[in-house]
Amino acid sequence: MRPSGRNADQLREIKFTCGFTKHAEGSVLVEFGETRVLCTASVDVNNVPRFLKGKGEGWITAEYGMLPRSTHSRMGREASQGKQGGRTMEIQRLIGRSLRAAVDMKALGENTITVDCDVLQADGGTRTASITGGFVALSLAIKHMLNKKQIKTNPIHGQIASVSVGIYQGIPILDLDYAEDSQAETDMNVVMNDASAFIELQGTAEGHAFRKEELERMLELANSGIKQLLEKQQVALGNY
Amino acid sequence: MRPSGRNADQLREIKFTCGFTKHAEGSVLVEFGETRVLCTASVDVNNVPRFLKGKGEGWITAEYGMLPRSTHSRMGREASQGKQGGRTMEIQRLIGRSLRAAVDMKALGENTITVDCDVLQADGGTRTASITGGFVALSLAIKHMLNKKQIKTNPIHGQIASVSVGIYQGIPILDLDYAEDSQAETDMNVVMNDASAFIELQGTAEGHAFRKEELERMLELANSGIKQLLEKQQVALGNY
Amino acid sequence: MRPSGRNADQLREIKFTCGFTKHAEGSVLVEFGETRVLCTASVDVNNVPRFLKGKGEGWITAEYGMLPRSTHSRMGREASQGKQGGRTMEIQRLIGRSLRAAVDMKALGENTITVDCDVLQADGGTRTASITGGFVALSLAIKHMLNKKQIKTNPIHGQIASVSVGIYQGIPILDLDYAEDSQAETDMNVVMNDASAFIELQGTAEGHAFRKEELERMLELANSGIKQLLEKQQVALGNY
Amino acid sequence: MRPSGRNADQLREIKFTCGFTKHAEGSVLVEFGETRVLCTASVDVNNVPRFLKGKGEGWITAEYGMLPRSTHSRMGREASQGKQGGRTMEIQRLIGRSLRAAVDMKALGENTITVDCDVLQADGGTRTASITGGFVALSLAIKHMLNKKQIKTNPIHGQIASVSVGIYQGIPILDLDYAEDSQAETDMNVVMNDASAFIELQGTAEGHAFRKEELERMLELANSGIKQLLEKQQVALGNY
Amino acid sequence: MRPSGRNADQLREIKFTCGFTKHAEGSVLVEFGETRVLCTASVDVNNVPRFLKGKGEGWITAEYGMLPRSTHSRMGREASQGKQGGRTMEIQRLIGRSLRAAVDMKALGENTITVDCDVLQADGGTRTASITGGFVALSLAIKHMLNKKQIKTNPIHGQIASVSVGIYQGIPILDLDYAEDSQAETDMNVVMNDASAFIELQGTAEGHAFRKEELERMLELANSGIKQLLEKQQVALGNY
Amino acid sequence: MRPSGRNADQLREIKFTCGFTKHAEGSVLVEFGETRVLCTASVDVNNVPRFLKGKGEGWITAEYGMLPRSTHSRMGREASQGKQGGRTMEIQRLIGRSLRAAVDMKALGENTITVDCDVLQADGGTRTASITGGFVALSLAIKHMLNKKQIKTNPIHGQIASVSVGIYQGIPILDLDYAEDSQAETDMNVVMNDASAFIELQGTAEGHAFRKEELERMLELANSGIKQLLEKQQVALGNY
Repeated sequence: MRPSGRNADQLREIKFTCGFTKHAEGSVLVEFGETRVLCTASVDVNNVPRFLKGKGEGWITAEYGMLPRSTHSRMGREASQGKQGGRTMEIQRLIGRSLRAAVDMKALGENTITVDCDVLQADGGTRTASITGGFVALSLAIKHMLNKKQIKTNPIHGQIASVSVGIYQGIPILDLDYAEDSQAETDMNVVMNDASAFIELQGTAEGHAFRKEELERMLELANSGIKQLLEKQQVALGNY
Repeated sequence: MRPSGRNADQLREIKFTCGFTKHAEGSVLVEFGETRVLCTASVDVNNVPRFLKGKGEGWITAEYGMLPRSTHSRMGREASQGKQGGRTMEIQRLIGRSLRAAVDMKALGENTITVDCDVLQADGGTRTASITGGFVALSLAIKHMLNKKQIKTNPIHGQIASVSVGIYQGIPILDLDYAEDSQAETDMNVVMNDASAFIELQGTAEGHAFRKEELERMLELANSGIKQLLEKQQVALGNY
Repeated sequence: MRPSGRNADQLREIKFTCGFTKHAEGSVLVEFGETRVLCTASVDVNNVPRFLKGKGEGWITAEYGMLPRSTHSRMGREASQGKQGGRTMEIQRLIGRSLRAAVDMKALGENTITVDCDVLQADGGTRTASITGGFVALSLAIKHMLNKKQIKTNPIHGQIASVSVGIYQGIPILDLDYAEDSQAETDMNVVMNDASAFIELQGTAEGHAFRKEELERMLELANSGIKQLLEKQQVALGNY
Repeated sequence: MRPSGRNADQLREIKFTCGFTKHAEGSVLVEFGETRVLCTASVDVNNVPRFLKGKGEGWITAEYGMLPRSTHSRMGREASQGKQGGRTMEIQRLIGRSLRAAVDMKALGENTITVDCDVLQADGGTRTASITGGFVALSLAIKHMLNKKQIKTNPIHGQIASVSVGIYQGIPILDLDYAEDSQAETDMNVVMNDASAFIELQGTAEGHAFRKEELERMLELANSGIKQLLEKQQVALGNY
Repeated sequence: MRPSGRNADQLREIKFTCGFTKHAEGSVLVEFGETRVLCTASVDVNNVPRFLKGKGEGWITAEYGMLPRSTHSRMGREASQGKQGGRTMEIQRLIGRSLRAAVDMKALGENTITVDCDVLQADGGTRTASITGGFVALSLAIKHMLNKKQIKTNPIHGQIASVSVGIYQGIPILDLDYAEDSQAETDMNVVMNDASAFIELQGTAEGHAFRKEELERMLELANSGIKQLLEKQQVALGNY
Repeated sequence: MRPSGRNADQLREIKFTCGFTKHAEGSVLVEFGETRVLCTASVDVNNVPRFLKGKGEGWITAEYGMLPRSTHSRMGREASQGKQGGRTMEIQRLIGRSLRAAVDMKALGENTITVDCDVLQADGGTRTASITGGFVALSLAIKHMLNKKQIKTNPIHGQIASVSVGIYQGIPILDLDYAEDSQAETDMNVVMNDASAFIELQGTAEGHAFRKEELERMLELANSGIKQLLEKQQVALGNY
């Protein structure tokens, strides 16, 4: 029995609120149950990082942050501590790589899109919510660029989403919340595209090492969860 | 005529959503028109800064941040730049001083409350919204402490709120939004209590120096605006 | 009775030693009683910050520091702590804004002047001494530029000075020294120009909130003090 | 055909030089072909991080660094840049988690072991070499503690090693060197124990997303490579 | 012929103004010609660095800084750059070591003295002026401690001073000013005690390597200069 | 009797392993007994620091680091502490100055060579080993540039090496190891060229001040030691 009362293969309630803030070219509040992340995509036209100058290609990058009291007990603010922690760096690198895998950089032209994922409230799975919501924010920003004729063709060549899976009391489960995650024996974050292929796979044995059969069962759960997330992204983008 | 179409002495629509996030002892989303700030108050029981150890007094401190795309064009994230800018420091010191002026530190006991003000969307007046919302978050956290019997008496000895005033095209106006603020000749932030006395007064001549009569007119506007804000705080706290 | 024995409306002894150091284009040691601040103005010809490039305008900026043992007990050196504190940032932003209000940036041309205010000895009122002395250093640097024909017309369009006022044991007083400041119920820093108009106004209630009548009395004291400071600046500049 | 001329399932030449430096309780130079990493394990007796004080448990942590000219072109030294990059943080967190998975923290007692992995020469696979060599250094340090009677029982409850796998020109291959890695379509780092179970799995699609069958073939390669590494670790530890 | 017009073995005009600032236990403005350094010694009673706790010994440390416009063209402020440069670190370590060599740490008891050397105006030889003035500030602080009965016996067991020597156009000269120093072929800083023995010797060949005979001639010059400085320190301390 | 059992004028065993790593243009592992430093010289063609742009001159710079467990007890990693310590800065400045003294910057052309000295194992004398090994790495890099025709003539106009001398139990000795250095009364690092002239001289009295006769005896020892080191450098460079 999961603490959340959900079935092993059941996602939390997923919600996308597109246009949550007004300044960003793409903005969405994504909710995976009680986890709420504000994802914004900011377009920097005709500007790319130094290593890409003059190559005719664009760039997608991501930054991640948690509000100090998004968590159970207050965390120190990274800005006042003078640096981003290792966990933050690891997560924002993961988000950036995942989103870049969905975009044709040539078609994006010499433009940069920065996706900010800021956690307003954390209840497990902030990185998978960030990637899943980040893709929506990115899509909205691309739509904006197409409308503004800043690019001619849609550079998105695939749809991506992400979910966590894990092993809780010996049973593989989908989309762990904080109560489940903090007691899970294994925790895995999976990013997949709409062709059911893998973009990123990051599994960590917390309690005991996981066997091949367990891995396979987790990947099946992830696949089914991601299919649902891809549909919900489509609905959100279609309705906005 | 103001860009916002408001009368010279008219506030924007003010809204408090108490309990906006669930982990903090006090949490409120405050909106001054399109400016939206998430204020959370976090209680650290039986812990005070080193300089207060053993003195039987508590402490209130504040931190302020803007999400990177809360603004018109994306700002660099302070956490990744490795330090908080001067403006951030100046604002969070102002919020902290203002809130401390409302609380009896002896009655608070050896406990610390940290008020985080994070700007989700900026449209002028983020510091006055932060102080006004910060007071609500602080009050909720104090109520929580009283319920938990962490303190015996309510240490809040006054109610405070804050609003900006300025001179726009020669005319003193109340509660400037971004379009007004960016063209104002003078900008003043006023913090007052429920006895119509001043806690903080920070006026800056942007375009031309302001005369005594202009100052007086601005202070009258501030006084009337703050009275309305104090009432709205009461309603919000009463309803929650 | 003030700890200093001065009348409520009496300034400390004010002294300007122009040319205190030899390298800077403008240099003055300003003394407000025992408070001593070395102000230097450094001219950077044909160079402006990035955001002003090509606009035909100049820039004035300020930096502030305290020598570690300028104070009663030794303060940590900010350079070895790796960052400037919030108070330092707040003060140098105030000095910069105040001095910019005295100068026509078009007439300054694409040149930058940096005013450094370094406190050799602190006894209250270091920020007001910095602004008042900073204006003298700035004027000397402008004179140097005119002599060198780096600019054609004097870009200074107003004279400014600054003084503190406060409420000590219920009585409004002028130009607080450390002993007075540390016990004052209210502390206000005022920057005015030679037309008796306000450039900056920063008032803080330390002990109890201040009422409108108290504010008015403090502003009168400030006005009279600033008039005397403006005269002393004139004498100092005339004699050098 | 691999650039290295190796078979798809062939490791590079693996070499462990135990006792490479003399001060550390455990020290080994590990070589995966031309990749050379100096791993040292330092014991801090009767000292644990603050969050473990008084819990009767120990801690294993890892740090990772590259000498500036361990790479093809010189990288900036992180110490002079004032911070560790995201890649460094990500890698040292991975090493630390992996090694902790091999140790019973209760049996380690209130002692901390820090494993430093410093890359003298890089040719691909520095993180897998670091984990594989780090385990050897850790084992030597544990042996030292047992000899010194600082602990009573061996806290190591499993043996671990790590290898990379990837897809190069459509073909899954084992233990990529730099030339292969920089052109691989998928890159996966696998950490396993001596029960053929997974400790960590980190796969990234660089060029195209990878399918389930490709994942399975890569995991088989990893399993066979890790078996060989575990044997070589045993030989190295047995001979020293 | 020296640019300064001095004889090869002639010091600049040396001046000590004891009690230049009022808060420090020891304070002196030292002038070597146009080079002016404010040296203050701050006593921290019953406090020593962690590595000395409980050993019954004291500590002397030094910090060095240059005001931004103490130099010909303005230098960036180290506090705003977020770190002290290598030259600053090197100099303050030299000052600290030199002063410690004059004091018996046991007799100092568990007290720390921090000597701050802040350059108000630089014209060559700031580190030698800092050491020479630092010794005076230190002596004044020790005198203060004796008067306050914080220590029983004078812990100073030797008198020290410092001067630079160099080779300018092939000729060894004493106490180089900036014009001489910037063209010197060799630059050497010498710290000696009142027994004509060496505390520190730091020679650098700027243009060509220096021979043994040149070294000897420079050391003679240093010896004669330091004798004069030791006398002037005595006079200054005696008169105060 | 020296702890090492060596004669007063005896060097430790000196060893150079050229080509220790493969990526650097010049690479050598230098050993002074148990002290082992990896020196690499990296060539940056057609690139010089800003202050040299367009002057037709090159630049040599050095960086120094110690692996965390190169020392008896583990030192914190400077990269994770966020800054280089004062000792590191002082040493790398010394290495850089020494190596620059051996090279004609005009003949080097607008190219920069960075010499990294990383201590793998420390047993006293790491800075003298770094300079002595750094010269070998630099020579190898220059040879590489000549082979690649990046420069036409050899810009090295002198050979340099470095050794430490000191006074141990009253007796001047050569090339101190850690056990000797930590108890020495005086410690001096000497850099000389092949004309027996001085490049750098840095002597520090640790216990008691040293007299002129002691200095002379130490310099003789240094001279004899450096002659041997220069020969060994020649052999190492000749054999490679």
